Order: sequence, then C-alpha cells, then structure tokens
Amino acid sequence: MTHNIYDTPDFFREYSRLERSQRGLDGAWEWPLLRSLLPDLKDKRVLDLGCGFGWFARWARRQGAASVLGLDVSQNMLERARQMTNDYAIEYRRDDLETAELPEGSFDFVFSALALHYIEDLQRILTAVNAALCEGWFVFSMEHPIYTASRKADWLQHTDGRKTWPVDSYSDEGLRKTDWLAKGFSKQHRTISTVMNSLVAAGFSIERVEEWGPTKEQCATRPDLAEERERPLFLLVAAQKRVNE
Amino acid sequence: MTHNIYDTPDFFREYSRLERSQRGLDGAWEWPLLRSLLPDLKDKRVLDLGCGFGWFARWARRQGAASVLGLDVSQNMLERARQMTNDYAIEYRRDDLETAELPEGSFDFVFSALALHYIEDLQRILTAVNAALCEGWFVFSMEHPIYTASRKADWLQHTDGRKTWPVDSYSDEGLRKTDWLAKGFSKQHRTISTVMNSLVAAGFSIERVEEWGPTKEQCATRPDLAEERERPLFLLVAAQKRVNE
Repeated sequence: MTHNIYDTPDFFREYSRLERSQRGLDGAWEWPLLRSLLPDLKDKRVLDLGCGFGWFARWARRQGAASVLGLDVSQNMLERARQMTNDYAIEYRRDDLETAELPEGSFDFVFSALALHYIEDLQRILTAVNAALCEGWFVFSMEHPIYTASRKADWLQHTDGRKTWPVDSYSDEGLRKTDWLAKGFSKQHRTISTVMNSLVAAGFSIERVEEWGPTKEQCATRPDLAEERERPLFLLVAAQKRVNE
Repeated sequence: MTHNIYDTPDFFREYSRLERSQRGLDGAWEWPLLRSLLPDLKDKRVLDLGCGFGWFARWARRQGAASVLGLDVSQNMLERARQMTNDYAIEYRRDDLETAELPEGSFDFVFSALALHYIEDLQRILTAVNAALCEGWFVFSMEHPIYTASRKADWLQHTDGRKTWPVDSYSDEGLRKTDWLAKGFSKQHRTISTVMNSLVAAGFSIERVEEWGPTKEQCATRPDLAEERERPLFLLVAAQKRVNE
C-alpha cells in the first residue's frame, strides 16, 4: 500500500495546521498557476486522485462539473472531506493509487494534486488514467524532481548568505526519506525524463509544463516565500489524451 | 550576435583538446543516448544547427542522409569542419542561430547538439525550426537547466565526502557566466518549463525527454564520470512536428 503517513496522528495533526489544510486551495501557493492549467470543467465528469480534504472536488462543482469522484488512501482525510461536503454529486472513496482499478472511459477530466510523488509505479497509474478518460485532460502537480533528488534535502547556506538547494543522486530514482512534518516521511524521487516519457508511453501528449516558484508579486506580500525562487518546488503538467490516428 | 567565444584563440585551443573535439561523436559521453533518439536518416535532408567540426554531418551522411546543411557561428569551427569533409552533399555555412533565416519546408530532420543554451531567443529559433521542417523530427541536446541555474555553479563538498550540485536562481532565466575552459564563458539559463512550452508553442509534440547521466557501465570503465550521476548535465529531447488537424 502507498505510504499512508496521513493516518498517523502526529503527522495528521501537523498536516492539518498547514495553510493549505486550513484555507484550502487559496492557501496553496501554487494554486493560481495550477488553476491556469485547467480546462473548462462545466458538465465534466471529474476524477480527483489523492483528493485529501476535498477542496478541489467542491471547487470543481462550483465551476459546474457534473460530478466528482475523489480517491484517497487516507481515512483521516476522507472523513474530514465528507464532513465538509454536502453534495450528492461528489463521491469520496478510499482507494490506493498504487493499485486502484479505474473504470475505463468514464471521465472527462482527471486531476491530481501532490499525490503522484508517493506512487512507486507511476507508469501503471498514468496508463490507468489515460484509459479512464473518454477524451480530455489530465492536470497534475507533484513534488519537483529537483526538490526530491537529494538524499540530504536541506538548504545549504553560503558564507555570503545566499541559499543553495542541493541536487545529488538525481539519476538514482526511488525512495527518499525526509523529516517533513514528521520523522521518516517517504516519497519517490523520479527524473523529469521519467515523468515525461511515462506520460507519452501512457498515451498523453504533453501540452504544458510549469514549475512553481513564487511570482515577484507573491514575494512582495510574502517575503518568506522568496527562497522558493531559488529552486522549483512543484512540477505542474497539463496533458491531453491522444486521439488515435 | 550569439556569444562566439569559439573564435577566441585561448578558448578554441582548450576546446580543441576536449575528448569530443578529438574523437568526435564517440568522444561525447552522451552520444549513445542522443543517437537512440534519432530517426532513420536514410534519404533525409538534414539541417544541423551549431554543427561545429561537422562530426554529426559526416556521420549522418554515412547513415544515408541525402544532404546535410550545417550552420555555425564560429569561423574556426567551420574551417576545421571543411578540412575534415570531402562530400558534395554536405554544406557548411556561417550563420548566427540568434537571427538565422531558415528556408521553410526544406528539411526532413533537424539536429542540434549543445548549441541552444547559447541562444537568447529560444522561441524564435524553435518556431523557425518547425517551419523549416516539411514533416519529421527535431532532436537536440542542450545544457540541462539544473546545470545552468546557479550563479556559482560548482560542486559543493560535504564533510562526509559526498558531492552536491548547487541549484539557485532557478526561476530567474537569462545570462550565466562561468569559467568553463576560459574566463567569462556565457550561456543562457532557462527552465525546463520554458523549453517544453516553447516547443509546444512552436508546433512540436514532445515525444521523448532524456537527461544524460552516465550509465553504471560507463562509470565502471570511467570512474571519473561517476559524479555525473549526481546531477543531469544535458537535456536531450526528441520532438515531432505536429500535423495540422
């Protein structure tokens, strides 16, 4: 089963305190950029992989989505999502993205925010997402390979005060353990090329790639974000299901 | 005009000593990977942007290419290319990729090795390459954004002996100066997203992305290459001209 630290009390308590847990999409720094990658959701049947507290599911319905199915492996997250949702067209279901069997040709749009870097078998889930789409788009965010590569992922401070992000072990994909919010937080490092080639192999065409760093305007109001211009924290991709020629 | 350090005597002397200058394609570490991205060249009209000493042009002809036009901004490089070439179907021409006007619909394949990171206006040249292709592929290598980002690009040594590559200023694209082979070597840093989105905007579909690090076999015979597994040095892309639907 996918690493499910979200159901451990210490981690969940810390995670629940994050700005993005408290304020939802508007508390997620990358949301304005991610939102700019989304297609029109009106009347779309939406699948959300790693739906968490359901912020996106509810937002998608406000944009006119016909229905949203949100999958997550965490009982804690789903429980809170259900508490916050009063909408018959949103369904939350517990499932593990590592093994989830998605119904084929059943969705018009698939979304996934910050979940794919937990998955060991990326190719499997991407192929399943492609098959689950009738036609249309898959938009996702994940931790950026530059962010996940190092085995000792922490800022390095130069003598002149500048901060540098370390990159090492880039070519060696697989498990990374860090101490994010709790000890022994696990994720999967993979390269940019693996992400891109897996999308192509799954039957997608890559339509837009973004790397989140704060805009200069964001830095002006939130000086604590400025260091995020040094390294890209998140990778955002909009991919379209290829039509067979 | 594009940064043309290749025509300064000191740099050119040092560059001429590199393994890739002496031994050609087989002296370029990334060549086996780059070669694996190439389409069949038989009977193809080939354009080579930044042809250097003409190693690729001559190789392409041995694969059966109908003709090769090689462009380069460096007189020194072209002079040596011409000395090494005895083939009426290869033409070398001096041109600056920053401003080069490529003839439209005139080529079946475009290649560019380690030249695009010198170009300030990437979108312009990519759009011109797309228009220059009848149909078919554009395969290129360039310095990897992880390699070009830092303003102080040099390995950091940890106390435990591990080496880390610094990434900073990633979101700030533009000029980078380093001391590669000579003082004040200039290149353009750009992000992965800019490369990918510029390709899409130019009318390409991204078919394969590779990041060169040595294979474990290469490291066994060349232990000095092992550190290149820590960071990706080169970005390699195979893109195909989109057919209008």
